[in-house]
Amino acid sequence: MRKRIDVDLEEGAIRETGLTGETLWLGGRALADTILSSEVPPTCHPLGLRNILVFAPGLLAGTTLPSAGRMSVAGKSPLTGGTKESNVGGMAGTILARLGIGAVVIRGASDTPPQKVVLIGENRAELTDMPELRHLGNYEAVEILKRRFGENVVIISIGPCGEMKMAAATVAVTDTGGRPCRHAGRGGLGAVMGSKGLKAIVIDSVDVPLREVVDQGAFAEAVKEYASILRSSKRVAFWRQNGTAGLVDVSQARGSLPTRNFSSGVYEEKDHVNADRLKALVAERGGTMGHSCMKGCMVQCSNVFRDSQYRYLTSGLEYETIAMMGPNLGIGDLDTIAQIDFRCDDYGIDTIEIGATLGILTETELFRFGDSKRAIELIDGIGKGSLLGRILGQGAVTTGKVFGIVRIPAVKGQALPAHEARAIKGLGVTYATSPQGADHTAGFVSEETLSREGHTERSRNAQVNMAIVDSLGLCQLTGLRSEYSLFARLMGSLTGKTPCEQEIRQIGMAALGRERAFNLAAGIGAGQDRLPEFLRSEPLPPHNTVFDVEDDDLDRVFIE
Amino acid sequence: MRKRIDVDLEEGAIRETGLTGETLWLGGRALADTILSSEVPPTCHPLGLRNILVFAPGLLAGTTLPSAGRMSVAGKSPLTGGTKESNVGGMAGTILARLGIGAVVIRGASDTPPQKVVLIGENRAELTDMPELRHLGNYEAVEILKRRFGENVVIISIGPCGEMKMAAATVAVTDTGGRPCRHAGRGGLGAVMGSKGLKAIVIDSVDVPLREVVDQGAFAEAVKEYASILRSSKRVAFWRQNGTAGLVDVSQARGSLPTRNFSSGVYEEKDHVNADRLKALVAERGGTMGHSCMKGCMVQCSNVFRDSQYRYLTSGLEYETIAMMGPNLGIGDLDTIAQIDFRCDDYGIDTIEIGATLGILTETELFRFGDSKRAIELIDGIGKGSLLGRILGQGAVTTGKVFGIVRIPAVKGQALPAHEARAIKGLGVTYATSPQGADHTAGFVSEETLSREGHTERSRNAQVNMAIVDSLGLCQLTGLRSEYSLFARLMGSLTGKTPCEQEIRQIGMAALGRERAFNLAAGIGAGQDRLPEFLRSEPLPPHNTVFDVEDDDLDRVFIE
Repeated sequence: MRKRIDVDLEEGAIRETGLTGETLWLGGRALADTILSSEVPPTCHPLGLRNILVFAPGLLAGTTLPSAGRMSVAGKSPLTGGTKESNVGGMAGTILARLGIGAVVIRGASDTPPQKVVLIGENRAELTDMPELRHLGNYEAVEILKRRFGENVVIISIGPCGEMKMAAATVAVTDTGGRPCRHAGRGGLGAVMGSKGLKAIVIDSVDVPLREVVDQGAFAEAVKEYASILRSSKRVAFWRQNGTAGLVDVSQARGSLPTRNFSSGVYEEKDHVNADRLKALVAERGGTMGHSCMKGCMVQCSNVFRDSQYRYLTSGLEYETIAMMGPNLGIGDLDTIAQIDFRCDDYGIDTIEIGATLGILTETELFRFGDSKRAIELIDGIGKGSLLGRILGQGAVTTGKVFGIVRIPAVKGQALPAHEARAIKGLGVTYATSPQGADHTAGFVSEETLSREGHTERSRNAQVNMAIVDSLGLCQLTGLRSEYSLFARLMGSLTGKTPCEQEIRQIGMAALGRERAFNLAAGIGAGQDRLPEFLRSEPLPPHNTVFDVEDDDLDRVFIE
Repeated sequence: MRKRIDVDLEEGAIRETGLTGETLWLGGRALADTILSSEVPPTCHPLGLRNILVFAPGLLAGTTLPSAGRMSVAGKSPLTGGTKESNVGGMAGTILARLGIGAVVIRGASDTPPQKVVLIGENRAELTDMPELRHLGNYEAVEILKRRFGENVVIISIGPCGEMKMAAATVAVTDTGGRPCRHAGRGGLGAVMGSKGLKAIVIDSVDVPLREVVDQGAFAEAVKEYASILRSSKRVAFWRQNGTAGLVDVSQARGSLPTRNFSSGVYEEKDHVNADRLKALVAERGGTMGHSCMKGCMVQCSNVFRDSQYRYLTSGLEYETIAMMGPNLGIGDLDTIAQIDFRCDDYGIDTIEIGATLGILTETELFRFGDSKRAIELIDGIGKGSLLGRILGQGAVTTGKVFGIVRIPAVKGQALPAHEARAIKGLGVTYATSPQGADHTAGFVSEETLSREGHTERSRNAQVNMAIVDSLGLCQLTGLRSEYSLFARLMGSLTGKTPCEQEIRQIGMAALGRERAFNLAAGIGAGQDRLPEFLRSEPLPPHNTVFDVEDDDLDRVFIE
């Protein structure tokens, strides 16, 4: 039976219990939102005492299944005011799962600023104070923690943005290289962690065995099939070769690359920021392509990027960051983008939200497109908590309010990611209707049709399947999202009880149902299942299309 | 038939039409929210092209009925994101009504910054440009407008805060002295006016006759009865004698006077800011008590306050401003409060919202209780649009977000007014459930019981009656709120068709229904019908009570 670890920072107490039978097939997102729904009053303040923060490895994490160690971080979001599951790679999901832990739940708040550290190891969970970590960036904090607890620990941490309770603050997780480069980026859960006074969770990973599997043979058989699919997948090969940066050219071709504050779907300097450019710089400077964020990954979409002086900058440079900080800000320079990425990782702030925020800031005199130096300055201001930085760190909607800007690319308080809803309308339906706010990972739809029809079903299926994938801990880049029979064999041999396909679909449907119910109880009505007005009124070059899916079709997404 | 004037600032066109028969009994709030509901997409951006701004005099305004010239200003609120009716005295309601105008509707937006002026006179409505008014405070703008258009015009205007689209910006209306001292203060409608590029509406009041009344004799008879009630009312006499400042002592006695950021219901220096102190200063400096904000008022709660050099400062100094800027900020000095009031009127910003905002700012190092000089500095920063000022001008919720403050006295984005919900629980129910956000004028309940029972019905009746009073244009300080048979006689003799009592109640119920439906469609669900958590968890001195009305009782308010 998987364990659940409850850390109460108000009492300074840690309690360990077993997860009940009803959660047999629930991991990751489904388990996290189950806990959230039953333990958090939906109307509570996200940064108040009654919110909780859940870390839940996917159901299949910690096994031999490749690319399956992802973790859900969940709580009520300070950005959206609703439910939030932010999914992250790196090593934490795998190691927590191997320790037999299904969920770590943080509640209450210490009476100190964020300096608490939770230590988790085999049969051990402790709470300690490390005031020396206060105000430190993730990189420095991780170095200090590794010096104290050992080079091989896996670390979950927040940077100064989380400590300052910024609504765009992230939770960082160390990758295979022990670097805090993987972020549960969306929805400001770093601020929730900061509000609890928690700076880091340190997980001892030495000599941790694989997870127990009920039927070893059947599991190994299913894993073999899974791995063989990944091995022969052209899609997986594409990611390994190009990283997610490969999407720059794909998006440009689709006309869905957000450019200059969502005013165009194509960027004339895209060759300066695409995968070819990335690969050339990585090769020239001794970086790495095909890097893994978690052990046993067969996708290997990550990379290690060095600056012009061959110094490590980030692992790795991802499409969303490239597009939101590059084309969306008119910055056609990977080195600037990598500098920004390093800072955002270090300060602990979401590159999507901040890319969108700087985009709208071009409507004021505080920033103009293409000004790389100023972009870096502004992000340093966020990390340092300057007055302007504190505004920007709250994300696009709050920044828009403060400066009287009306054209805000956001849904339910959360900024649109780097895939234009006017060019990929099915994805627009996901942005509008996901209980998570605008989020491409909540149900990616890539059909390029410019017709307004059929998107309801596409988005519904994508959202349900993604909820399943997020619950199992699978990487969505494998492309395996609807292979229910294979999922069933893995889940059955792992747990001893095999779900039917209907039961698997129900995991996704029920998760979405709980999340939507939470939002409704929090006061977020269906009227918020809408895209910002400019996506309906401003035609997007090059196709000159607007988002024209009918409101009725949006309202049908969750009525099967 | 009353007229409706539509001003389209995008087209630069003004259109006049007649109000249809269905609106026979609808004026003020009920007429405004009818127009809002049918013409504004609830999901639109409050500062975008699709929002409108409605000015609607109460149904009985412009007649011989005393204290009945109030006006509703309405639109989608940038503060709450929902429906908004902000009710205001001054001379505009009376004169618009006498011109036969039932509603002025502003739509679209000019392509210039706010410099448009609408001129309305007998059988005339024009649009003009006055760039010389840009960035001016209400006082200076009004002086310039009077020089150009005549000393006797009535003016509706915004100050720099409305021009900067701050979510706490007000719409100012000149009073009997021609001063911009009456404000539609709540919900940021000044920002909506600013977003349309409209700086002022100038109404020519010379030689405007009384409104036509269908049955003169019966109307005069009803007016006589109404006036006689007011004449013999102790309540009205209290207001005339003390102004609303009389509530300082009343609130202190009830334990409902917000003190030091809503941490106590009594203020040890209340004698420095109460009506006795006000009257003494007014007498000493040649000011006026018993001043009228509109002609023909029998309540006369206003005053003219002069500074220690005998110079005019404000007309008048009201309870909400005194409490929110005084006790709530630990400032026990009427002169400071009057200085603040003058500035807020001039800049065009809501004293309730900003009082609450400075209150929470004491949780940072930017402000401390009792620092009068700093309070004035901060408010000057708002008027001038400093970076900090731009944050504060968005009100308490946004300021709380930016500075990571959790304890925010607000409902649906709007700050609590100066009556403690923990001491007057029925009013707390109104704050929680009103479609307007926290608003004492949305349904005042004064029962002092500390029990948790019976508040649902009290608040429901108060909200329905207040919606009726706001629709008729009556001043709520008359105390006449449920005299339906008298209302019926007035409405019947005015319009030629007499409503039954049920039909009068239905005016209020239907208005609330439309407003709630608008909110729901805007995505504001019933989950937002809640007070902030600290009111349930922190006992309020001196009674040491919390707000403990059950959620179920809140959810029953609008289910009869």
